[in-house]
Amino acid sequence: MAAKKTTKYVYHFGKKTDGHGKMKALLGGKGANLAEMTRIGLPVPPGYTITTEVCTYYNDHKKSYPNMLQKQLEDGVTRMERQLGKKFGDKENPLLLSVRSGARESMPGMMDTILNLGLNDETVVALAKSSGNPRFAWDSYRRFIQMYGDVVMGVQKLPTEDEEPFEILIEQVKKNLLGNAHAEDTDLSADDLQVLVAEFKKLVKSRTGKAFPNNPWDQLRGSVGAVFSSWMNDRAVVYRRKYNIPVEWGTAVNVQSMVFGNTGDSSGSGVAFTRDPATGENVFWGEFMMNAQGEDVVAGVRTPDPVIGLKKVLPSAHKELLRICKVLEKHFRDVQDFEFTIEEEKVFMLQTRNGKRTGLAAVRIACEMVKEKLITWKEAVTRIPADDLDQLLAPVFDQASVKQVKTIAKGLPAGPGAATGKVYFNADRAEAAKAKGEEVLLVRLETSPEDLRGMIAANGILTARGGVSSHAALVARQMGKICICGAAGVQINYAKRTMQIGKLNFKEGDFLSIDGTSGEIYAGEVKTAPSEVVQGLLENKTAAKRSRTYKNFTQIMAWCAKASKMQVRTNADTPAQVKNAIAFGATGVGLCRTEHMFFEGDRIDAVREMILADNEADRRKAVKKLLPYQRKDFEGIFKALNGLPGTIRLLDPPLHEFLPHDKKQIGDLAKKLNVKPAEIKKRVDELHEFNPMLGHRGCRLAISYPEVAEMQVRAIFEAAANVQKKKIKVNPEIMVPLVGFKKELELQAEIVHRVAKEVSKDKGVKLKYLVGTMIEVPRGALTADEVAEVAEFFSFGTNDLTQMTMGMSRDDSGSFLPNYEEEEIVSNNPFAVIDQTGVGQLMEIAATKGRSTRKNIKLGICGEHGGEPSSVKFCHSLGLSYVSCSPFRVPVARLAAAQAALA
Amino acid sequence: MAAKKTTKYVYHFGKKTDGHGKMKALLGGKGANLAEMTRIGLPVPPGYTITTEVCTYYNDHKKSYPNMLQKQLEDGVTRMERQLGKKFGDKENPLLLSVRSGARESMPGMMDTILNLGLNDETVVALAKSSGNPRFAWDSYRRFIQMYGDVVMGVQKLPTEDEEPFEILIEQVKKNLLGNAHAEDTDLSADDLQVLVAEFKKLVKSRTGKAFPNNPWDQLRGSVGAVFSSWMNDRAVVYRRKYNIPVEWGTAVNVQSMVFGNTGDSSGSGVAFTRDPATGENVFWGEFMMNAQGEDVVAGVRTPDPVIGLKKVLPSAHKELLRICKVLEKHFRDVQDFEFTIEEEKVFMLQTRNGKRTGLAAVRIACEMVKEKLITWKEAVTRIPADDLDQLLAPVFDQASVKQVKTIAKGLPAGPGAATGKVYFNADRAEAAKAKGEEVLLVRLETSPEDLRGMIAANGILTARGGVSSHAALVARQMGKICICGAAGVQINYAKRTMQIGKLNFKEGDFLSIDGTSGEIYAGEVKTAPSEVVQGLLENKTAAKRSRTYKNFTQIMAWCAKASKMQVRTNADTPAQVKNAIAFGATGVGLCRTEHMFFEGDRIDAVREMILADNEADRRKAVKKLLPYQRKDFEGIFKALNGLPGTIRLLDPPLHEFLPHDKKQIGDLAKKLNVKPAEIKKRVDELHEFNPMLGHRGCRLAISYPEVAEMQVRAIFEAAANVQKKKIKVNPEIMVPLVGFKKELELQAEIVHRVAKEVSKDKGVKLKYLVGTMIEVPRGALTADEVAEVAEFFSFGTNDLTQMTMGMSRDDSGSFLPNYEEEEIVSNNPFAVIDQTGVGQLMEIAATKGRSTRKNIKLGICGEHGGEPSSVKFCHSLGLSYVSCSPFRVPVARLAAAQAALA
Repeated sequence: MAAKKTTKYVYHFGKKTDGHGKMKALLGGKGANLAEMTRIGLPVPPGYTITTEVCTYYNDHKKSYPNMLQKQLEDGVTRMERQLGKKFGDKENPLLLSVRSGARESMPGMMDTILNLGLNDETVVALAKSSGNPRFAWDSYRRFIQMYGDVVMGVQKLPTEDEEPFEILIEQVKKNLLGNAHAEDTDLSADDLQVLVAEFKKLVKSRTGKAFPNNPWDQLRGSVGAVFSSWMNDRAVVYRRKYNIPVEWGTAVNVQSMVFGNTGDSSGSGVAFTRDPATGENVFWGEFMMNAQGEDVVAGVRTPDPVIGLKKVLPSAHKELLRICKVLEKHFRDVQDFEFTIEEEKVFMLQTRNGKRTGLAAVRIACEMVKEKLITWKEAVTRIPADDLDQLLAPVFDQASVKQVKTIAKGLPAGPGAATGKVYFNADRAEAAKAKGEEVLLVRLETSPEDLRGMIAANGILTARGGVSSHAALVARQMGKICICGAAGVQINYAKRTMQIGKLNFKEGDFLSIDGTSGEIYAGEVKTAPSEVVQGLLENKTAAKRSRTYKNFTQIMAWCAKASKMQVRTNADTPAQVKNAIAFGATGVGLCRTEHMFFEGDRIDAVREMILADNEADRRKAVKKLLPYQRKDFEGIFKALNGLPGTIRLLDPPLHEFLPHDKKQIGDLAKKLNVKPAEIKKRVDELHEFNPMLGHRGCRLAISYPEVAEMQVRAIFEAAANVQKKKIKVNPEIMVPLVGFKKELELQAEIVHRVAKEVSKDKGVKLKYLVGTMIEVPRGALTADEVAEVAEFFSFGTNDLTQMTMGMSRDDSGSFLPNYEEEEIVSNNPFAVIDQTGVGQLMEIAATKGRSTRKNIKLGICGEHGGEPSSVKFCHSLGLSYVSCSPFRVPVARLAAAQAALA
Repeated sequence: MAAKKTTKYVYHFGKKTDGHGKMKALLGGKGANLAEMTRIGLPVPPGYTITTEVCTYYNDHKKSYPNMLQKQLEDGVTRMERQLGKKFGDKENPLLLSVRSGARESMPGMMDTILNLGLNDETVVALAKSSGNPRFAWDSYRRFIQMYGDVVMGVQKLPTEDEEPFEILIEQVKKNLLGNAHAEDTDLSADDLQVLVAEFKKLVKSRTGKAFPNNPWDQLRGSVGAVFSSWMNDRAVVYRRKYNIPVEWGTAVNVQSMVFGNTGDSSGSGVAFTRDPATGENVFWGEFMMNAQGEDVVAGVRTPDPVIGLKKVLPSAHKELLRICKVLEKHFRDVQDFEFTIEEEKVFMLQTRNGKRTGLAAVRIACEMVKEKLITWKEAVTRIPADDLDQLLAPVFDQASVKQVKTIAKGLPAGPGAATGKVYFNADRAEAAKAKGEEVLLVRLETSPEDLRGMIAANGILTARGGVSSHAALVARQMGKICICGAAGVQINYAKRTMQIGKLNFKEGDFLSIDGTSGEIYAGEVKTAPSEVVQGLLENKTAAKRSRTYKNFTQIMAWCAKASKMQVRTNADTPAQVKNAIAFGATGVGLCRTEHMFFEGDRIDAVREMILADNEADRRKAVKKLLPYQRKDFEGIFKALNGLPGTIRLLDPPLHEFLPHDKKQIGDLAKKLNVKPAEIKKRVDELHEFNPMLGHRGCRLAISYPEVAEMQVRAIFEAAANVQKKKIKVNPEIMVPLVGFKKELELQAEIVHRVAKEVSKDKGVKLKYLVGTMIEVPRGALTADEVAEVAEFFSFGTNDLTQMTMGMSRDDSGSFLPNYEEEEIVSNNPFAVIDQTGVGQLMEIAATKGRSTRKNIKLGICGEHGGEPSSVKFCHSLGLSYVSCSPFRVPVARLAAAQAALA
């Protein structure tokens, strides 16, 4: 890749500048903002940025530089010398420099910083004299040799050494001179440090065969080369691959005159935010250290002080910093995270960038900046990472209480928030305990649909196995339950009803607390509280509604509604879930799984009777028993929807999921149905499948047993008619699962239309409805043009579509998927984030083909991905009408949809 | 659909003709060939064809006709009258007509034939007089009323009736007049028949409210309308849908002057072939019946005689028929299957078409017709249904064994080959027995379409009644089933499920053996031996090589080699399989499943040790034990290949397939490996998967355990090096299974290249090889452009690709796929025949994308579909380099490939 023929390789900053903040591609993030701060008159120590083009040239030309560079570097230094009245390498008043890397995006893995460049045996003496502080000068010198020796000259730890070689020397010198190898650095005098400097130089010579360079220009060239070379080092290459950063971007190098925060009590260094990044409060926030260089603040040797302290210690500097905060925010129009140094009461800015913040802070800051007219409401919407909105909904541990307990194990954070309760290892007992008023945590090796009641009863769920897409995690997210999965340290003994975590033993009924945001597990009871947003929206609590968080949240949601082109629906199976989702802003149900109702109450008996029937007549009898249950379910959902559209999926899972599998349960069922247990056992065995995911399920069931589909459709339409009679509008969209062939849908649509006619006639009402299909089988996507001849809508079932397109069973992928993420075969868990290249390609094919047949076909998504921001944005790009997700993900999806529309 | 504005609706034949044989679209198959026979001077009773356009017009215009039609019909009749000297409706010498349907393709389900049209109360008297045979005249009349009343006027069996109403009347009249309801039809005199005619007319009147039409023109109009209407009847609609016949084709109607084979002993009717359709021998072959109408020959009331008998009875007619055979073959350049009637020694042709034949016959006929210069070798190749080639590989009775058993009965040889199995007298039971793994023979009095499934399930079919043109014979020949018809010595008792042959009694489930080439029936199980082709090619037996069948077969294969663009490889795991396949003409191995070798001998222990290892070091130890086994396997395969390319797939199936699952086996293994059974049980449980098809298998295993792949690759290259040193060329193509991501392949390719270098260096030889991938995961197909950056070849694994694309587990689809075929959701079993619309679409995407990256990427298929003719042709259309199939399917695939190239 040849570098472009630009002859300007160096951009100045500090007094005047020839760069600006938008030049991040050429100057890197740091360089561009140093130029920008110069432009707006902030105090920046003079320096210059060597462009990213030089980096590209350097790495393409065997580590050599373009011809004109040396001259520009020298001119730049001359300019600094003129501005500061110092001279680079001068024996009286030497100019010292820092050299920092600065790529377009912050990139750990690259060389970062060399300070105090320009020191040598002569300039160190001059610095000692000019600063009146010989110890500071020699300490700076030894630091410089250490940094330079390490990162530029490559002095590394040998396999035989326990510690970094420079550190070993420091200990030796301390031992020799102070008699104690572990004395504090500050105990070393200027003279001691002088000895150390000599030892350091010897080390460099012996390890590299080269003398430490005395010539400041050699030092500068060496440092700049090291930064450019570091762009190609292994860590940087790996990082770039992971985050899709093109190698062509290159890094810039910032060469800047040193200012010193360590010249005495009127100096210091700090790192600060223009607002509080944890809460978003509009206060100057950060840390500083008196008489220290910037490196000391982050190194953690001493604990820094909150910046508010500056008000007392250095009021003028504090005042100046407050002013700078205002200027920064006004100019950059966002919270800034910046580094500063105070040299003799004078404030200097070394870096600024947009500040990372929590979700809570992001929301508050966005809202308040609009009020302050700093940003528009559209910008406010784009400023909040959509996922972070979750943090405003999750219950939290009471901060005081959590500090008093210890983390005893960790798992995968699968449902954010804090939960505490008594552990139960079985759904029935968990439910019973809950009924008795206990707070319950359900702890299982892993969960299955049979555990649903226990999960509903529990405050939180903890599993020893399974990933963030396991049954437990999925259901937890849909329910908004707190959940930790795959906590390998948890050993459960079902038989004894005990559990061991580390050395602690728990028995059923003991208290445990879990943090689904961090994955941390605590012994005992830790106090929690619901978030204000949840209290306000779902519990209608006035106090919560008056809270700032609630108001900010609803403000953001209102803006989202204004911006979005895509609707957000919800995956919900009960009226309560529907109501919650609507409170969160859902505009309909995108997926109601009828079979989730099958487990409730004693209807499971009728379900099992239906499955065990070996002829149509018996099946019809059993199915008839289910009809009133299902009708009532749908009435509840239609009432909750109050006219909003509701997509109802017909029976999907393989039948054996509904049957009992152990001897006792089989025996009980046999008694109830008055048949021999062996008969039930036989049917259970018959229904066993090698690959149930790809077996007799979805519409294949309805094609084998049309009477089941007929009952479900009848229940839907009778419920619709009943609710309509109460003057409530009903908009059912009937969805056929697992369609791979147009004919499959056709056979189902025939049943729907026939039953609709029958019910319409019986009840004397007009019924409005749509018939459509899940697109979850690759063949369905590939033949979407044919399927759309019958389907009035498509809903992408991206869970199954991902499983089939990748040939990966979600439930079995735990044995290799973590390895796949490590090896970077997949960049994300494909069951959490849509694989746009593969699965997304099929979605696009389906959307295009579907529209080619039916121009305005309604398209949505009801897989778990519908609540994941990057997937929501992808759906927007496909032009979907809606995404659908679990109720508690609705706000996140709404925000992501709005951001997609504003992008 | 408006009919075209053609004004010519009627095409004549018989003396002169305005049609010809290529006009099948307009005249239907029967009409076109009647015209063509006229053209070449064969004796065809005059008549005309009403075009298919009239059918379309009729069904589009509320069953009305185009204006000009009536005139043309009348003119046509006039023309017949002039030619024959008879008059339609004449009271002295009446012209009688037949009306037959005739679509472009033969289509059961449509109205077929009405004979003796033109008879009424007056003409019947004339016919009696002119023929001098009143009984014949009245019998013809009652037949006409019966046929017309049924198919034109719609007199149908009522739910209360046990039999067809006309048959009930016949019995009543027999009872009343003869005193015996079950007397023979021939016992009825002319007077009796006159009574019957009167009863028939009353029946028609009472059932339809309309009198039976006396006017011959009304009869003609009614019959023509009935044919056109039958194009739209349910059975026809279903049939068209099944075979993708467009409704627009329509059917033609053939109106032809009657000739009578039932005027006495110098008359008769027959059905014949120009060559023997069972063996292909160039002899006049067929059946005839003296003093009979054509309907009698196929009705099976009397058993007809072989046509050779005509030589004695009617030598002049026989001579004429031999002449006609020559003319037909010379003109149509294929075996003809024709109907003839002899009226007073004069031969008339009523129909001709290309004759269906067995595979054996097809090959012999094709070869001999080329020798006779009737057709070119390219035509010969296209004449043999590829699947039928299988019949030449089917076993025959072992000559030694067959000599030890006695022929217990003989029947007509109707489907050549040897079959042995347990007898079943009912299709359902035969099918059920087959499903249980039994070898089955279906034995019936005669067969009907309801027996189809039983025939499919059976090794062979034996009927007690019916000739070589019976349903059983026709279907058997079409399916390539072994069949004996009309074995009069076989007495079946359906109720008791027994059969008597001579003095031997058989019950259902007893063994029987039939030789469909000779017609001989043997009691018990008779050993079978390989066919002459197999003996010649695989066993190198000289006698077999001298056989006609062997020579014909190899001739066809040689032509295929000349014609084909696609190679045929084989799926083979052992040197013996490879050798067989090469003998059948395979040009390489398309799929060698390395894991198939894992079960042989005691190596399974090392495999299990490898799987049970819980760390890399132990795994490496176990893997090392496997290396010499695998190396030896590959040496054998490379030697067998002798320089031909061999695609070797790395480990594919989930590991638990190799582990023992029951207690005893686990105990044994534990002893061998010196571990506790519980440990093995634990590992087996860990490896359990919910959906193993979509689990930890394929390259996912190799990514988790690279040392396994490394061992396999090392074994391949070491074997290659060793064999190369023996001056045998080696061309391995290493195939990575289950690739969905480019990176997966990349990681494997790295191992392959590294090991290749190592082995190359160690052994001091150059290694030539390719690295490629299965395309079996939809994502792999969708991202084939990326995958092709690494892959040097793709091989479509259509088994898994079908499972994933359709979301259908092959092992579980038994519970719904039969229903899917019935409901016509799928037109074929997608695991046998490639689903071109869905799976084929993905293949095309992959081929196109693969080539976009790597222009000349080698493409093949190694799924089961590679041996199925229509799938082979599809692969040709995608431009694949080769198909690969099991050794015994290689000839079929070669023929299909050649046909695709010639198409």
